[in-house]
Amino acid sequence: MNTALVIVDVQKGWDSAVWGKRNNPEAEGNISLLLDSWRSSRMPVVFFQHMSRNPKSPLFPGQAGNEIKDIVRPIGEEKVFAKNVNSCFIGTGFEDWLRESGIDSLVIVGITTQHCVSTTARMAGNLGFRTFVVSDATAAFETKGINGEKYDAETVHALSLATIMGEFATVISTNDILKMI
Amino acid sequence: MNTALVIVDVQKGWDSAVWGKRNNPEAEGNISLLLDSWRSSRMPVVFFQHMSRNPKSPLFPGQAGNEIKDIVRPIGEEKVFAKNVNSCFIGTGFEDWLRESGIDSLVIVGITTQHCVSTTARMAGNLGFRTFVVSDATAAFETKGINGEKYDAETVHALSLATIMGEFATVISTNDILKMI
Repeated sequence: MNTALVIVDVQKGWDSAVWGKRNNPEAEGNISLLLDSWRSSRMPVVFFQHMSRNPKSPLFPGQAGNEIKDIVRPIGEEKVFAKNVNSCFIGTGFEDWLRESGIDSLVIVGITTQHCVSTTARMAGNLGFRTFVVSDATAAFETKGINGEKYDAETVHALSLATIMGEFATVISTNDILKMI
Repeated sequence: MNTALVIVDVQKGWDSAVWGKRNNPEAEGNISLLLDSWRSSRMPVVFFQHMSRNPKSPLFPGQAGNEIKDIVRPIGEEKVFAKNVNSCFIGTGFEDWLRESGIDSLVIVGITTQHCVSTTARMAGNLGFRTFVVSDATAAFETKGINGEKYDAETVHALSLATIMGEFATVISTNDILKMI
């Protein structure tokens, strides 16, 4: 009951071509399985919705891309936080809400592995929360390096997980989390 | 005058063999060049010293490994913050100190690229500071991935910079920063 499922930025705008190639198309399906499990167990679920400040972003408010995807849409009284930056902890009151709710463990999923998920997991671990990141319930996009070199989405994903594993979070699979619920 | 050089965890304990192979042995020399420039210009310099909570860590207080390296040792009234976690912003009062000091831009250097430097840069950018990370004034260590795959230090370094570039910080070289001072 003190372990929250934290669903970060699973929004329709990620399906835009502007982001380049993505890995792990199964992420949303795995998040949906986790969400079903959390709901069945009446454990806390928290959604984050990114409100981009860039009018050209597919995640900018006031268009379909800003909406949370149907497969993991919040229902009833489930908590939804809006955010403007990558970290779920900055500008949101999320930490205070967790402390007041008695939640000390977080299972983090969502998009993207290298930006919002990594940053939120880093802060969660450093703030003292027991932190899990679900490796197959997150996804990354391809990116360029500082010298123009290209990294495919799977490499970005894998190395983003490697750099948080052990130091900030336990990295675990959907199946292994489901076995623990 | 409102741009601080932030020197993260440049401590003797990083020379221990426990961390594995490191890239960019020139990092400390480049940080020293930047420090000289900041001091000559009387611009603000801030040091962070990691106080590990793990008695087995080379960075644990009370041993030589915890000391800041001689090449970048703080002098006079220069500000030194102690920290226990990766982020320079957590448990330190750093953000309040920056706001009170009228500092709105940060040039971040130090060790390691993938942990303390990346996490601090992510938070700095998300908190609204104009943030620079100096690519050749940071260094990474080799690491293992979630399936046991090995990433050499240069790959960890390059991809850690790629995942913060543009989104959280401007990634720039020592020479390019020195030209701006």
